[in-house]
Amino acid sequence: MVGIRQIEVYIPERRISNYERKEELGITDDFITDKLGITYLSRMGPEQDTSDLCCMAFQNLRGRAGIDPSSIQVLIVCTQNPDYNLPHTSAVVHGKLGLPESCAAFDISLGCSGYVYGLAVVQSFMQLNGMQQGLFFTADPYSRIIDPNDKSTSVLFGDAATVTLISNDSVFRLGRFTFGTRGKGSHHLICREKKLHMNGREIFNFAASTVPPDIHRVLEANGLTIKDIDRFLLHQGSKFIVDFLAKKLGLPPEKTPFVIEEYGNTVSSSIPIMIKPLLNDLSVKQILITGFGVGLSWASGILTRSS
Amino acid sequence: MVGIRQIEVYIPERRISNYERKEELGITDDFITDKLGITYLSRMGPEQDTSDLCCMAFQNLRGRAGIDPSSIQVLIVCTQNPDYNLPHTSAVVHGKLGLPESCAAFDISLGCSGYVYGLAVVQSFMQLNGMQQGLFFTADPYSRIIDPNDKSTSVLFGDAATVTLISNDSVFRLGRFTFGTRGKGSHHLICREKKLHMNGREIFNFAASTVPPDIHRVLEANGLTIKDIDRFLLHQGSKFIVDFLAKKLGLPPEKTPFVIEEYGNTVSSSIPIMIKPLLNDLSVKQILITGFGVGLSWASGILTRSS
Repeated sequence: MVGIRQIEVYIPERRISNYERKEELGITDDFITDKLGITYLSRMGPEQDTSDLCCMAFQNLRGRAGIDPSSIQVLIVCTQNPDYNLPHTSAVVHGKLGLPESCAAFDISLGCSGYVYGLAVVQSFMQLNGMQQGLFFTADPYSRIIDPNDKSTSVLFGDAATVTLISNDSVFRLGRFTFGTRGKGSHHLICREKKLHMNGREIFNFAASTVPPDIHRVLEANGLTIKDIDRFLLHQGSKFIVDFLAKKLGLPPEKTPFVIEEYGNTVSSSIPIMIKPLLNDLSVKQILITGFGVGLSWASGILTRSS
Repeated sequence: MVGIRQIEVYIPERRISNYERKEELGITDDFITDKLGITYLSRMGPEQDTSDLCCMAFQNLRGRAGIDPSSIQVLIVCTQNPDYNLPHTSAVVHGKLGLPESCAAFDISLGCSGYVYGLAVVQSFMQLNGMQQGLFFTADPYSRIIDPNDKSTSVLFGDAATVTLISNDSVFRLGRFTFGTRGKGSHHLICREKKLHMNGREIFNFAASTVPPDIHRVLEANGLTIKDIDRFLLHQGSKFIVDFLAKKLGLPPEKTPFVIEEYGNTVSSSIPIMIKPLLNDLSVKQILITGFGVGLSWASGILTRSS
């Protein structure tokens, strides 16, 4: 059974400061510290594209895990900001990395629930097709679609990419997943004419009403309770939403990290960025992951340390 | 084991005639008849979007198969021309059809290989997650990105959508798949600044060199030979490429349909449009399907009549 073998991350070094823009945007220090929890936003360079962020993440994987590109049998990219509408970004990445022609490649389009969904897609696709080694990328650089004058979105999102190596020789195996969709609310977080529009209140209400029951559902589906979980990795939308959900569910703060102060909400990359440092922390045996956002869409899953 | 239960199709009634444009484009009757094999191109209305094409296909399914929307557990849309970059088109369709919140939804981004890939994705996703009833849509209206003055693309592509009902109670079950990617050639079929650019010669050479070996590979993976197959459903790029591949492989013409004269190359919809009339043709027991195009990407699979 395939699972998570390794994760590598690329967060561009360039930063925008929310403090430096607070007067321009009419926001306070308290708002930045307590509600957003985001001091800096990471920004890719003008010469970079989504596929380049993926390739940077892969270079880290290649350097640390000694991956041989010729061993990769499938490559999946989760993005809603592809290099082009067509071809798919996974094909562009396939070409840039020089992967073999026998490698399958496709993109999935999802936002903040994309990592959880993508794990289910890549795991099931590999098992059906008898594949042993796959790459699952997340890269959704919202800097491309942010209106710098939009108070509600221009202080939130940072650029990043991650790559997860999926193989039989896993560090974390994957349990049962739960999924949900509220398509009738899809217009509350939408990109029109290359500009992102977000109804923050509706997105908050959506997350507040759907995520807690979904966490109970995924625990039950896996025969677990809150006490069995060592880390609750909630999509890092903002400090306010993570704090709210943790409090509503009664999750211990030390088990519910908030880590995006230095780069912002990286959409589908937020969860793998949090998993990476836990791969070698042997005290962490069970992890619950929950993504929620664009769609409106949500998904949860359980990672269990292999042997 | 889930498989194909039903397929429904929506091809917009509006048509453009290639004959009427032949002087304007400097093409001959022989070129239209022998090389393209496409007389008319289907065109969605100015008020329609990709999600609307999907909903029209679903209305046909609902009418003929009596599907209860509340029974749908997953909805996948394959497109590279979504309504918006975000949200995903599957979420928009989910909202328009009023599907339950428990339904999973995501898009996959692939072109002409998308139906074959999508069958593998939806089958494996449903099996992993214990789902019994799913919808897989294809809808890629290239009319949005066609430059009407581009001789090589403006005579080829038609708009359409299809929906495939995937369930345990299948008419065709799915065999082993093969996949391939040549990312280094991805720039030969690309959409830049909302305009499609195609290097026709390169795409032809790509298909001519990759599809025949892939067909032999998928036959071998399923323990079959050419003689065992009742229909070879090759992606309908143009009459020239379908004729070329059939001849190169020695496929009987009566088993290798070309059917797009009245609407054009519908990208990921071309294969399901051909499968639909075979669902009730009991003489057809084994079908080979092959998609190839954008990516550059290719995939093949075998459909076998259940019981």
